[in-house]
Amino acid sequence: MKLVVIGGDAAGMSAASQARKRSGVDDLQITVFERGHFTSYSACGIPYWIGGHVTDRAALITRTPQEFAKQDIDVRLRHEVTGIDLDRREVVARRVDGPAGEIREGFDHLMYAAGAVPVTPPWPGVDARGVFGVQTLDDGAAIHAWLDAHPAPRRAVVIGGGYIGVEMAEAMVRRGLDVTLLEKSPEPMSTVDPDMGARVRKAILGLGIAIRTNAHVHGIETTDGRVRAVRTPDDELPADIVVLGLGVRPNTTLAADAGIPLGETGGLRTDLRMRLLGGGRLDGVWAAGDCVESVHRISGRPVHVPLGTHANKQGRVAGINIGGGYATFPGVIGTAVTKVCELEVARTGLTEHEARAAGYAYVTASVESTSRAGYYPGAATMTIKLIAEKRTGLLLGAQIVGREEAAKRIDALAVAVWNQMTVEEMTGLDLSYAPPFAPVWDPVLIAARKATDAVHATH
Amino acid sequence: MKLVVIGGDAAGMSAASQARKRSGVDDLQITVFERGHFTSYSACGIPYWIGGHVTDRAALITRTPQEFAKQDIDVRLRHEVTGIDLDRREVVARRVDGPAGEIREGFDHLMYAAGAVPVTPPWPGVDARGVFGVQTLDDGAAIHAWLDAHPAPRRAVVIGGGYIGVEMAEAMVRRGLDVTLLEKSPEPMSTVDPDMGARVRKAILGLGIAIRTNAHVHGIETTDGRVRAVRTPDDELPADIVVLGLGVRPNTTLAADAGIPLGETGGLRTDLRMRLLGGGRLDGVWAAGDCVESVHRISGRPVHVPLGTHANKQGRVAGINIGGGYATFPGVIGTAVTKVCELEVARTGLTEHEARAAGYAYVTASVESTSRAGYYPGAATMTIKLIAEKRTGLLLGAQIVGREEAAKRIDALAVAVWNQMTVEEMTGLDLSYAPPFAPVWDPVLIAARKATDAVHATH
Repeated sequence: MKLVVIGGDAAGMSAASQARKRSGVDDLQITVFERGHFTSYSACGIPYWIGGHVTDRAALITRTPQEFAKQDIDVRLRHEVTGIDLDRREVVARRVDGPAGEIREGFDHLMYAAGAVPVTPPWPGVDARGVFGVQTLDDGAAIHAWLDAHPAPRRAVVIGGGYIGVEMAEAMVRRGLDVTLLEKSPEPMSTVDPDMGARVRKAILGLGIAIRTNAHVHGIETTDGRVRAVRTPDDELPADIVVLGLGVRPNTTLAADAGIPLGETGGLRTDLRMRLLGGGRLDGVWAAGDCVESVHRISGRPVHVPLGTHANKQGRVAGINIGGGYATFPGVIGTAVTKVCELEVARTGLTEHEARAAGYAYVTASVESTSRAGYYPGAATMTIKLIAEKRTGLLLGAQIVGREEAAKRIDALAVAVWNQMTVEEMTGLDLSYAPPFAPVWDPVLIAARKATDAVHATH
Repeated sequence: MKLVVIGGDAAGMSAASQARKRSGVDDLQITVFERGHFTSYSACGIPYWIGGHVTDRAALITRTPQEFAKQDIDVRLRHEVTGIDLDRREVVARRVDGPAGEIREGFDHLMYAAGAVPVTPPWPGVDARGVFGVQTLDDGAAIHAWLDAHPAPRRAVVIGGGYIGVEMAEAMVRRGLDVTLLEKSPEPMSTVDPDMGARVRKAILGLGIAIRTNAHVHGIETTDGRVRAVRTPDDELPADIVVLGLGVRPNTTLAADAGIPLGETGGLRTDLRMRLLGGGRLDGVWAAGDCVESVHRISGRPVHVPLGTHANKQGRVAGINIGGGYATFPGVIGTAVTKVCELEVARTGLTEHEARAAGYAYVTASVESTSRAGYYPGAATMTIKLIAEKRTGLLLGAQIVGREEAAKRIDALAVAVWNQMTVEEMTGLDLSYAPPFAPVWDPVLIAARKATDAVHATH
């Protein structure tokens, strides 16, 4: 049997490793085609490498091709797959740097893990030198090289105020640049509700980052093919470097070319075992990671959530199944977290906007509390917001903004969302208490109490 | 209507406040008898006050009698209830400091919140001067005064290596004493399994605390009524001060004297609304806090878990019900946390010992991981241990020992235990991930994977 993997990052390599664990080299040959220079790296770590928290790029790489080779996994870097022939059960590839010529590789199982591609708007000048995406480690290396090559003073414009945009804006400030962040929504970090986003705005301003919200971009102005400014409806923002943090979309070109149908989010659709839906020619074809869509367990809708944690889990599940085992990926609930300087921001479940879109009638409750007993040194304030279904009190979502020790509390809320707890049931939860870790009423419990009152008030 | 509350700490005052919120002063008179000098204080904060983390005793007091007076709650400090007359519906009290004489107060509702009393063994000399318990803020004040009055060099022996013992040992070291900790079990912190306790031992030793495990005490040696040494089977341990951290038992003397039956743990038995079980003469009698026993949701057994977090929740539930509302206390799952210098220790659910006692066949899995992505600055190691039912894979319990940002992860595990998740289901949990907060596989997920393998291996 032969497994071909398209894409050598989290999902693809997790699948390869898990398949190998269950099948010896005599039973299963594994070949991985990876377009870039690296395998299994932490794309999420790129902003921290650029910002200097992490000094060694190698630290971002979990496992190298040499390590995979010891597992009898044949990783071919700088090999781009150009086509999938589902009838012949072959993939077609080419060497990115090497001699021209077509490579054909047959498969019994195909693992599609091509990841995502940055959303690049059709702005004039968006291909100019000095305009960077932040998707692959190669992208990160390019930004790193640019920064090293261009001494101060330098002006950066980061377009997009989501996780990667905010993280990159902070990284740029740490590298001594003047940074302006542009976000089209009323508040940055639109993955949380605007009332929480307003707190993130303050933290961003506190870093010395200029921020424009409700901002639109009309194009990139260039000189000799090099970025000079970002053009908005009203003015030109001078820029020596532009970073695009506009999100990503599933990288499904190869799949679409092969006639594989896409889901409504643009991602590939799989069953619980990460097998492509459809059967027939798609038998033995698996997909995982940033190229697939997942079911959101609370809205019941397909969503595209490109996160390393899902890619790893999905890849593992696919690999176990390819190797003859049994595992399922149960869907997502929209948990995410980031850090803006000392501010921690986390969410799980549905935001207000998402709850409305899913058709829920809901109440909200926000509380301010502290990370430790009020009298204990280092107690820091945090805000927790809960969203609960009107009548039933079902916890639909939660958001946290706070200082240290705030964000990881989202995990307890994520497990509560996962288990479809009501906010009233949550008031009885046996959470840990000691003065260095929480007030005697943990902020999560206080929020649950307030949300319970809000639910009762609707009856 | 008239509510009399016995005990003015967490449970009693929570009940009083909640009852008042629902009943105006014309509908409900509320009188609280409190033996000590304080209301609503954080007993859990005492070690941190003695150790100097918290410098102002007042900070430990959540609300004063004056604040309760504004809510029309009549708090009588230094009033000891000496009897309960269930037939006449009266409590009998006396002033601790004031003029002799019996005070009788009738009630419609009686809230029994007398808390706990320290376990004091029948050792000769245990009443000597210089031997202290750590149960009430008055106890804490006495230790504080002793330390202020006795300049160095001073030798302390702390008897009992549980939460309070370890916290007090650390506090004493911070105050410059030579400290020896005695614990009768093979490892300190016997509320976690010995393999985890061994890690706590290292942290205790690292603080410069001498520790003797498997230790027995035969008595306290005195000179002129003052402690001089602790006598063990083998030697005498010189001591200027002895702190007893041997746990507490429910303070039920008054209840027992009134003919109220006790549960098998020695605590009062209540229904879900915190009403005493039994009916008849017990109608209108409620109990909450360290004097009651709770149902452990995983073992199904009654347990006595004297923690402020439960006292607050139970008191709130009782008060809502007394005030005509509806609330229930759903039981406990044994969650607890503490900090030993930089080491964080947390648990939830059942330990191995408790799982065996409850009749479970189980598997365990322990993993070492880090609090942040391995490459992110400040990533600290932690150990997570899971206990899962053999065959079903039901998560029975979890323990964490680690450095910063480790212990609060127990809450996600507590919510998983609460919801009777299996370790296999947990492998799919959508927990938060970003490099400053977790490796891409959160330690909780890695532990769940390993425990799943252990469960499968039994099939």
